[in-house]
Amino acid sequence: MDLELVAIGTELLLGFTIDTNGAEIGRALGEIGVRVVRRTAVADGEADIRDAVGAALARTGAVITTGGLGPTRDDISKRVIAGLFDAPLAFDPSVWDDVLARYARFGRTPVESNRIQAEVPRGAVVLRNRWGTAPGLWLEGAAGLVVLLPGVPGEMRNLLRQEVVPRLVERGSGRVVRSRVVRTSGIPESTLAERLGEIEDDIAPLTLAYLPGVAGVDLRLSAWNLSPAEAEDRLTASAELLRARAGEHAYGQDDEDLAALVLELLRRRGAHLAVAESCTGGLLGGRLTDVPGSSATFVGGIIAYDNAVKREILGVPGAMLAAHGAVSEPVARAMAEGAARVFGVEAALSVTGVAGPGGGSEAKPVGTVWLGVTLDGETRALASMFGGDRREIRLRATQAALDLLRRRLTPTAGPGTAL
Amino acid sequence: MDLELVAIGTELLLGFTIDTNGAEIGRALGEIGVRVVRRTAVADGEADIRDAVGAALARTGAVITTGGLGPTRDDISKRVIAGLFDAPLAFDPSVWDDVLARYARFGRTPVESNRIQAEVPRGAVVLRNRWGTAPGLWLEGAAGLVVLLPGVPGEMRNLLRQEVVPRLVERGSGRVVRSRVVRTSGIPESTLAERLGEIEDDIAPLTLAYLPGVAGVDLRLSAWNLSPAEAEDRLTASAELLRARAGEHAYGQDDEDLAALVLELLRRRGAHLAVAESCTGGLLGGRLTDVPGSSATFVGGIIAYDNAVKREILGVPGAMLAAHGAVSEPVARAMAEGAARVFGVEAALSVTGVAGPGGGSEAKPVGTVWLGVTLDGETRALASMFGGDRREIRLRATQAALDLLRRRLTPTAGPGTAL
Repeated sequence: MDLELVAIGTELLLGFTIDTNGAEIGRALGEIGVRVVRRTAVADGEADIRDAVGAALARTGAVITTGGLGPTRDDISKRVIAGLFDAPLAFDPSVWDDVLARYARFGRTPVESNRIQAEVPRGAVVLRNRWGTAPGLWLEGAAGLVVLLPGVPGEMRNLLRQEVVPRLVERGSGRVVRSRVVRTSGIPESTLAERLGEIEDDIAPLTLAYLPGVAGVDLRLSAWNLSPAEAEDRLTASAELLRARAGEHAYGQDDEDLAALVLELLRRRGAHLAVAESCTGGLLGGRLTDVPGSSATFVGGIIAYDNAVKREILGVPGAMLAAHGAVSEPVARAMAEGAARVFGVEAALSVTGVAGPGGGSEAKPVGTVWLGVTLDGETRALASMFGGDRREIRLRATQAALDLLRRRLTPTAGPGTAL
Repeated sequence: MDLELVAIGTELLLGFTIDTNGAEIGRALGEIGVRVVRRTAVADGEADIRDAVGAALARTGAVITTGGLGPTRDDISKRVIAGLFDAPLAFDPSVWDDVLARYARFGRTPVESNRIQAEVPRGAVVLRNRWGTAPGLWLEGAAGLVVLLPGVPGEMRNLLRQEVVPRLVERGSGRVVRSRVVRTSGIPESTLAERLGEIEDDIAPLTLAYLPGVAGVDLRLSAWNLSPAEAEDRLTASAELLRARAGEHAYGQDDEDLAALVLELLRRRGAHLAVAESCTGGLLGGRLTDVPGSSATFVGGIIAYDNAVKREILGVPGAMLAAHGAVSEPVARAMAEGAARVFGVEAALSVTGVAGPGGGSEAKPVGTVWLGVTLDGETRALASMFGGDRREIRLRATQAALDLLRRRLTPTAGPGTAL
């Protein structure tokens, strides 16, 4: 089955909102063999919505829309799309009960404008939204199928997974589009491509895409229009081949997160982790604690943004800071050792660098980052040079710190290279 | 001038990459009066690219594409689009010199596949890329105008701002599309809408959109197809009206960041800030240090993920933790006071909550967060209940902590309400 997505919202075109829903839907539908063949974003004007949804229906007969279902005046998706199906809107008391119950849970009462959210096009199936006030709608008729979902990512995601995917599976063809990602860290895209060589013939009919990002280079294998069993077999074999060629640079698969992997490797050896962060300012701790259950292994950290904190809390000698500067190998080592000591843990990571835009020098330009790792009393450090802006440099430094610890915890992996 | 965007990459439709470029371009072009009228994402197949770019050219005559300019085999945008202009590709030594220089800067040598990046369609203007290896291309002919930009966000952004925008300004009509955002925090969307009332007539011909997100509700005013002067005047007057009605909930404008505002308010009174984070695990520090120059005001923090850290480093009494639990008013207060003491600063924020998915209870369900703020020796705390998943709860808690400090630093603002 093919399907198109239409994202509705002037703010998407103006760029004040980034559309994450399209990616979320693409991923969820790919898993069940529904192919998103096109994604269109239009303004929330009546004609724009009618034209875009109407054209998508004419092309593929099946459309998922996101956005424009809220309680305010610019939310007109429901009315316009109901018009394409000649379906008048009517107030639905059971939807209104859901809205009232949700407000009560947060100790509030809805305002008059919320009543719009309880209006339902005739013939539509209401997809109950337990995560927000705008229900999804499943509207099917002579014009085709349109599924209307709210634009708020958390609400959209839950409705998609729990209401839309099961209904689409029921009408499946048996053929699927499946992907598998082999994740790498510590190697640039072109070096990785050289290392993989002329791999296209070996993996055909699967296709391969290189996806470089702040977390490293992901290698995405895709199987198109195969039976589920054949797709799985071919993906497994080709992913194995990719991992073998990528060697120690491959750390995981699909959504596997480097922070989760590092925490799991530490948990297996009964070690606990602390961090000492300067230029990342808490992002490394934030990344680690994004992993549910991280509290079993991650103890805490010191955000040592000011040099006084490096001295007084982490015990970095003032003379060392004066002689080498905060962005240096001895300071990175002393920060990691200080964190291990302060928190009484076996493993600690440190990050100290120049994230920019200011603070760079001839000897230490913006992007220079020293990373330190201490494990069971042995400390190592690695210098890196990261491209990108302040945000990207900080994210790359966070990932590189995690990768440094992964390589320490994986005896066969070498020290990695600067990205 | 109207223009369409075409994002190229199977990974966009499959959802393995989120397209942030579309928003970035929309914002940059809106500022100069170029309206993005449609955004399409297609796979990186030859027919998909040719059809989408060809159709967009037929509709509007001007297209910006992103993606598919890398050194690997799936990067075919340049070749396919050159075909639409009947422009053969030729190796350009000056582009190759740029690639070599960039590699040298990072202490590497390019591999053979990088040579593809130095091939240029006949008649194209090369937009030099000093931030990566794939140059942008400005291709104009009988078919219209296509600007090819790389998909890597940092490279795309720099080429757009420095090479594309100036060229588009030269051919401008004099009419612009301009927006202004009034940012609010600490008030739900529907309550805010009720508070603003029937404001549409007062701001016409400007339009208003409500943009709820983890940072609060943004109010976007847009002026369409006006002269720059009229657009500015109307936006200024209407933003003033919105701010007056939103009252103390309005904290900033456009891209103004609450963390930057709080740091500025502290800087003006000569105060320094530290944080003590439990459930946010470093995100609050990460957010504050994302602001360039934050080191003048932000000193550091303690990521007190484990209760032992709350006791031993922040000095939260063990008996208090046992009696009230880590997610409680006294612990939030003690954490903030502990951070102020440890770092020797006038201002400190604390966050302790249940981010989920586990750890919730009847009395303290997932989403329960206590925030603490201490300023010049006086401490306050606020309980909040946040919706969404683990990630959203942590982001909302981070924003709410910053908002709590903003309200302390802004005498006329009340304590805010739970979001």
